[in-house]
Amino acid sequence: MGRSFIHENFLLGSDAAERLFHEYAADCPIHDYHSHLDPIRLRDNQPFRDLTEIWLEGDHYKWRAMRAAGIDEALITGNAAPEEKFLAWASVVPKTLGNPLYHWTHMELLNPFGIDELLGPGNAKDIYDHCNEKLTTEPCSPRGLLNQWTVKTVCTTDDPNDDVDVHRAATNDVLSVRPTFRPDAAFGLTGTTDLRAWLSRLEQPIASFQDLVNVLTERAEVFDKAGCRASDHGLTQMFNHDFNQRISTEVVKRLLSGDEVDGEQLSQYRSHLLFELCKVYRNQGWVQQFHLGALRNVNSRAYRTLGPDTGFDTIGSDQQVEKLSAFMDRLESEDELTATIIYNLNPKDNDALAALTGVFQDGGTVGKIQFGSGWWFNDQKTGIERQLTSLANMGLISLFVGMVTDSRSFLSFSRHEYFRRVLCNFLGQQMTAGELPEDYGLVGNMVVDICCRNTERFFDF
Amino acid sequence: MGRSFIHENFLLGSDAAERLFHEYAADCPIHDYHSHLDPIRLRDNQPFRDLTEIWLEGDHYKWRAMRAAGIDEALITGNAAPEEKFLAWASVVPKTLGNPLYHWTHMELLNPFGIDELLGPGNAKDIYDHCNEKLTTEPCSPRGLLNQWTVKTVCTTDDPNDDVDVHRAATNDVLSVRPTFRPDAAFGLTGTTDLRAWLSRLEQPIASFQDLVNVLTERAEVFDKAGCRASDHGLTQMFNHDFNQRISTEVVKRLLSGDEVDGEQLSQYRSHLLFELCKVYRNQGWVQQFHLGALRNVNSRAYRTLGPDTGFDTIGSDQQVEKLSAFMDRLESEDELTATIIYNLNPKDNDALAALTGVFQDGGTVGKIQFGSGWWFNDQKTGIERQLTSLANMGLISLFVGMVTDSRSFLSFSRHEYFRRVLCNFLGQQMTAGELPEDYGLVGNMVVDICCRNTERFFDF
Amino acid sequence: MGRSFIHENFLLGSDAAERLFHEYAADCPIHDYHSHLDPIRLRDNQPFRDLTEIWLEGDHYKWRAMRAAGIDEALITGNAAPEEKFLAWASVVPKTLGNPLYHWTHMELLNPFGIDELLGPGNAKDIYDHCNEKLTTEPCSPRGLLNQWTVKTVCTTDDPNDDVDVHRAATNDVLSVRPTFRPDAAFGLTGTTDLRAWLSRLEQPIASFQDLVNVLTERAEVFDKAGCRASDHGLTQMFNHDFNQRISTEVVKRLLSGDEVDGEQLSQYRSHLLFELCKVYRNQGWVQQFHLGALRNVNSRAYRTLGPDTGFDTIGSDQQVEKLSAFMDRLESEDELTATIIYNLNPKDNDALAALTGVFQDGGTVGKIQFGSGWWFNDQKTGIERQLTSLANMGLISLFVGMVTDSRSFLSFSRHEYFRRVLCNFLGQQMTAGELPEDYGLVGNMVVDICCRNTERFFDF
Repeated sequence: MGRSFIHENFLLGSDAAERLFHEYAADCPIHDYHSHLDPIRLRDNQPFRDLTEIWLEGDHYKWRAMRAAGIDEALITGNAAPEEKFLAWASVVPKTLGNPLYHWTHMELLNPFGIDELLGPGNAKDIYDHCNEKLTTEPCSPRGLLNQWTVKTVCTTDDPNDDVDVHRAATNDVLSVRPTFRPDAAFGLTGTTDLRAWLSRLEQPIASFQDLVNVLTERAEVFDKAGCRASDHGLTQMFNHDFNQRISTEVVKRLLSGDEVDGEQLSQYRSHLLFELCKVYRNQGWVQQFHLGALRNVNSRAYRTLGPDTGFDTIGSDQQVEKLSAFMDRLESEDELTATIIYNLNPKDNDALAALTGVFQDGGTVGKIQFGSGWWFNDQKTGIERQLTSLANMGLISLFVGMVTDSRSFLSFSRHEYFRRVLCNFLGQQMTAGELPEDYGLVGNMVVDICCRNTERFFDF
Repeated sequence: MGRSFIHENFLLGSDAAERLFHEYAADCPIHDYHSHLDPIRLRDNQPFRDLTEIWLEGDHYKWRAMRAAGIDEALITGNAAPEEKFLAWASVVPKTLGNPLYHWTHMELLNPFGIDELLGPGNAKDIYDHCNEKLTTEPCSPRGLLNQWTVKTVCTTDDPNDDVDVHRAATNDVLSVRPTFRPDAAFGLTGTTDLRAWLSRLEQPIASFQDLVNVLTERAEVFDKAGCRASDHGLTQMFNHDFNQRISTEVVKRLLSGDEVDGEQLSQYRSHLLFELCKVYRNQGWVQQFHLGALRNVNSRAYRTLGPDTGFDTIGSDQQVEKLSAFMDRLESEDELTATIIYNLNPKDNDALAALTGVFQDGGTVGKIQFGSGWWFNDQKTGIERQLTSLANMGLISLFVGMVTDSRSFLSFSRHEYFRRVLCNFLGQQMTAGELPEDYGLVGNMVVDICCRNTERFFDF
Repeated sequence: MGRSFIHENFLLGSDAAERLFHEYAADCPIHDYHSHLDPIRLRDNQPFRDLTEIWLEGDHYKWRAMRAAGIDEALITGNAAPEEKFLAWASVVPKTLGNPLYHWTHMELLNPFGIDELLGPGNAKDIYDHCNEKLTTEPCSPRGLLNQWTVKTVCTTDDPNDDVDVHRAATNDVLSVRPTFRPDAAFGLTGTTDLRAWLSRLEQPIASFQDLVNVLTERAEVFDKAGCRASDHGLTQMFNHDFNQRISTEVVKRLLSGDEVDGEQLSQYRSHLLFELCKVYRNQGWVQQFHLGALRNVNSRAYRTLGPDTGFDTIGSDQQVEKLSAFMDRLESEDELTATIIYNLNPKDNDALAALTGVFQDGGTVGKIQFGSGWWFNDQKTGIERQLTSLANMGLISLFVGMVTDSRSFLSFSRHEYFRRVLCNFLGQQMTAGELPEDYGLVGNMVVDICCRNTERFFDF
């Protein structure tokens, strides 16, 4: 091997791509408007115990790869020692060739750890020790890491009941930490038992559907005052049933009293609640986000053993467009459609969803309806390029609000760099092929817009 | 910027591509077998008022981009002065980088207007004045434009009630103008009220379903005598309900008397009517065209204000293959399947629909069942390449009848050039990679077939 | 034409691709773990009558192309003389430019026949005579051909009632011929009449559903002793109805007595039978294969005339993931999920199905759940690349068990070479672009794993 694997022109396949990246993209600050970082850790800046904690814990991407490669669960989510877990992961890394994990792994080893080697069983122990030492230094503390990456904004993902004072306390001149209103629990997606428990944890007692809406509206106001600029919903498919106050209140009462709720009525309740919440978001002037298409907890044996978010979710194949467009139309008909980002998990729907955004642009807000960046399983070179392609062909890529990490990991900010490299390569290739004008001012400006300026304007950061 | 953006080798990424385009494709005449041009304008050759009329009026592609970019509706479809509208569009053009609009815009400015600049706010006024002057000259009259593009045939899109004498009057030695039989109104896709109104406008009074079929059969004969060679249907999904004469007649009677029609019965009527019409097409020896997959008028607020075809349609995601194949099988079983072109709006279905064409080839008509060119949202480089890829892999691209504008605009004939460049680039790339033999006679001949000869044979022009 | 069309670096677009192919892939033996070869012909080594027999008979790919090109059925499946049929095919070959048939045709002419020309009407007769002569020689006998291709293993596809002694007799030190358990007939997919006939042909009389399961379990044991390592099912969609012993037995009884079986009950029977069989496969330690997504016998007129497998099947567009994941989850919940390969016919589902495999990896068997190679309509360069792309992005391509011919033809083993060239080109391109490390040991080893070693381990050959 002559050059390093991750070098300064990694993924940049043309002179144009190199120029767009280095002269325009590289120095843009990061506004990570959708993440799952822990705001308490951001506030307290508590250092990481070791490389296993910062890199493997909670990382279901790596866990899936390890399971596929035949690693025992004890070394993945089990009781094995941190170092053993790391060595198990390192033994799998060469097997991830071709998967985005191989890129992410080596980008994250290089930055922030300064390691320019291919990880494998042979060098695993040395790398583990080296990184653990680094993790004791300030630049590798939670805030130190964000600082290295010039992260200016982090939007976390929070339940309406969550404490948002922590976000205020974590915010300073350098970094803005903002909550995101994600009331998934209010929809009972993980079962009515969980929903009942959640309802009983609400600050104020509720007796009707309207009470519930009122409580959530108040919480939205509290979130807004703490800097919240967006809501978020995770949905296999958009809810779009008919609904009415009577049934929704009956559902709430049955839930509170522990009675059975019929599936059809639950769907009506969910559709109703989402509709009412979207009005709240409109009223707050927020951006609403819909993450569509995940099938969660598909392996029920593993779910019973390990719980949610452990690598047993997958991509659904339901039709998305018809229900989503009907729901958005209903909001638009009542002038209740706020700025919206639609994230799509099954790439077969990319074109249709990108086209759909064009139907609800209103000539007022610039780029009001956004087709969001390649998400989860699509957060890789092919997935990013496909999202960019669909968006460019069906809408206006120049207005795109760009990348998010959507991550639980403090090392994931290299995903922004990864995205920017793919973006610049994508545009540079088109410049080289004469599909875009060879005008760096024009194209470079668009790159900066996509990397940070559109986000700043869209979310009013 | 060194070279012009739209130069002679625009989109041609290899020597082979250049040679295929310049030596084979460029000089083929155009048979635009599916367009929405106004035949009266073709007959009367009435010049265009200004660049706004010829370029912006009716162009929902541009309107969508303008709305996304935050332009007020007054400057799009409203009462603003033509020049203001043009300046608004020009301000959006740099925001369309990466969208096919950016290519089309500059191809259309270069040809026929001779403008070799990137349109933007800075040069918008000069360009507007220059083009308006050009539009007063004969080469920029409706027929002059078609002549510049060596258009030999235009097939318009017409309601069965439309006057087809106009097509005869518009036809001469240079240009053949042919009607296309498109009885969408007979299906009540925009509502039963519209269907009722349409039925009452028929030349002859009808009392039964058979009366309706008879009237349409007579109109098809009139169309045929006026040079019609094809029918066309726009369908979200293929109709494929069971049906019988009794129910279809009941639907007709209820429609005429203004009574409610049940949704299921309406579907049966539609399936029945389409089936009977397909027999008529078979009898006439026409080509039948099915445009599948559009969701129309999705934004009902905009529909109420602005009406249909104003940029509020999108791509549906219904399953297509099962219903379409069942419908075609029914026709084939009764030996009533005429030559057919299937146009697909959602690219996720490209492969399955291209494969489906192979099931109904009958060994008699060459290339009898065609997978049509990338349509509407797919009329861009990626969309064209994907259609070509699916067709080549699943069927025989050598028999493909090629491109149509499907356009309301007299400036859209550059889409044929665009398609040909993409086609030659696509094939040239494969020659260069050794995937096609480096035999220009063989591949070049196929290019000419796709650009014009297959069309001439297939439609018997 | 300077160089030959099929030359030593055919499809290899970079130095890295050339090196990966020639140094790693080319010499790997072939384990064709899913084919439709006739085991009797393999045992008896009966030579082929002529080029038409070995190349055109049973080849529905070629038949479809011929029909599309307007060739009369008499020259395809009819009574025309073998030479006439060959000449008809040769006249169509130049029309298949761009289709995989064009590649396969010329690869198969070069190897084993040594013909380095483009087939067409001009040289058809000479080529026919030359090949017929070759076919009389030992290297072009059935076993001679496999030997030339270094085929070490062939798994045929067999009904549970089939005689598997023939496989034993066909196996020697050079070639292992193994049966595959494919009980499609037990599901009545071609109609309940066929199912009834099949039931009556079983060796032992059955009176209940359990009897049927017992008979099939015994046959599976017989298959296993004859070297069977895998089962296979062809399914439009995964069966996933609720079921119980009582209804399944009622279905069996009604079938045996010739009574009507209700569609819903038939679906329950099918779901039940598949579930029970999967437990048998688990118990035998076999690999189960599911071929998903074909719509069969879509053209009923042709089906009545020509029967099944004559070129009138196509790609369905049903949702696959939800039913398949529910079925697999049910097996996994009862610890009855054996190693599995999922083959997908509609490429729109590639990503979702590739992602699904990750949900059922169990940390025990390496690469336990496989996303199978591009199948049937997808067995072409684009299709192979798409399968590789989805697998690499969503899973671990390093564990992939690679290519199968899935073919009835003794000339199809060049598909393995074709796959390997596409694979090496795919990886070589990524090495050249810096997306994979420039480490030939690392990447080349993965190539060998995919070409043969993973298969050997996975099937325990």
